[in-house]
Amino acid sequence: MAEPIDFYFDFSSPYGYLMSEKIDAVAARHGRQVRWHPVLLGVIFQAIGSRPPADTVSARGRYFFMDFARSARFFEVPFQQPSRFPLPTQNAARAFYWLHGEDCALARRFAHAVFRAFFVADRDISAPDTVLEIAAEIGVDRSSLAAALQTPELKARLKAANDQALAIGVFGSPHVIIDGEAFFGADRLPQIERWLATGGF
Amino acid sequence: MAEPIDFYFDFSSPYGYLMSEKIDAVAARHGRQVRWHPVLLGVIFQAIGSRPPADTVSARGRYFFMDFARSARFFEVPFQQPSRFPLPTQNAARAFYWLHGEDCALARRFAHAVFRAFFVADRDISAPDTVLEIAAEIGVDRSSLAAALQTPELKARLKAANDQALAIGVFGSPHVIIDGEAFFGADRLPQIERWLATGGF
Repeated sequence: MAEPIDFYFDFSSPYGYLMSEKIDAVAARHGRQVRWHPVLLGVIFQAIGSRPPADTVSARGRYFFMDFARSARFFEVPFQQPSRFPLPTQNAARAFYWLHGEDCALARRFAHAVFRAFFVADRDISAPDTVLEIAAEIGVDRSSLAAALQTPELKARLKAANDQALAIGVFGSPHVIIDGEAFFGADRLPQIERWLATGGF
Repeated sequence: MAEPIDFYFDFSSPYGYLMSEKIDAVAARHGRQVRWHPVLLGVIFQAIGSRPPADTVSARGRYFFMDFARSARFFEVPFQQPSRFPLPTQNAARAFYWLHGEDCALARRFAHAVFRAFFVADRDISAPDTVLEIAAEIGVDRSSLAAALQTPELKARLKAANDQALAIGVFGSPHVIIDGEAFFGADRLPQIERWLATGGF
């Protein structure tokens, strides 16, 4: 079995959401697993002096809001621009890493549920209560997760994931790494497909 | 006949070059013509407070240099990273607009020749002499072009093209507009194809 693919994303990233709906199936067609790594793009942008692509005042910023929705239609993924956007995602990311330590298939289901709660149902995924609700909806014990979210160990776990992402050059979301080769953006899916099919080009 | 497609680009833009090798054939398959508009990305970036994607010091910047070459292989377009990059392109852009006033098919051939001189043959397309040589190689009268490049009318023509691009929201290269719909980046070619095939999605 070939090495797993690494998928870095922020739960508040529209292109990260589009990739999340596609990457597992693409990988599976080529006999690969995917390791999911939620990170905090705000922390990464601050570290590297970058900024999010979309804003509501410039022509460039407005283009990206339009492109989020059009790219979702292109990929045939349900999408509704969240009314609060972007949102802090540390609670969702910490919950993911805690679940991942318990049951990695459940963590994957939780990640899909968080993305869809934000980008389809317009829920406020920054709120701890919403994160707990989403987890409970897929069968997670709410009080165990609530307790875990308060622990310094879990905060350190997310910080370590962010530091590791920065160390290997992750600068945006989605950022996919296949056998050391980086692919940034949902629009690199066709290149990812060809790379997996051919072993590099 | 449907309205022409508008294609905005800078001669120093790798993704603009990739689009230049594809857009006419894609448009023709759907019964469309393409109007080419060279602009100065440096002027546009200054106006909107943006910056070029690639640099040699950051992980993000190095990614884009890698991605230029990989995207060229993906699109099966010859590409060699120019040793001097990026370069000012006002002489090449002015020459294009002068030729366009004389013979628009010749202007198109010139644009391809400039892109390939830079991104395949590593020629210094910022130099007036190189621009004149490239033009002469495709049959343009060198002394007529040399005289035209000195005129304030031609400088004003490029400035007007840049101002018009900024006014309609062009913020990068390549930027393609189809019936009022904007597509930024060579990686939007699949969306352009579907848009032309379906009349919108």
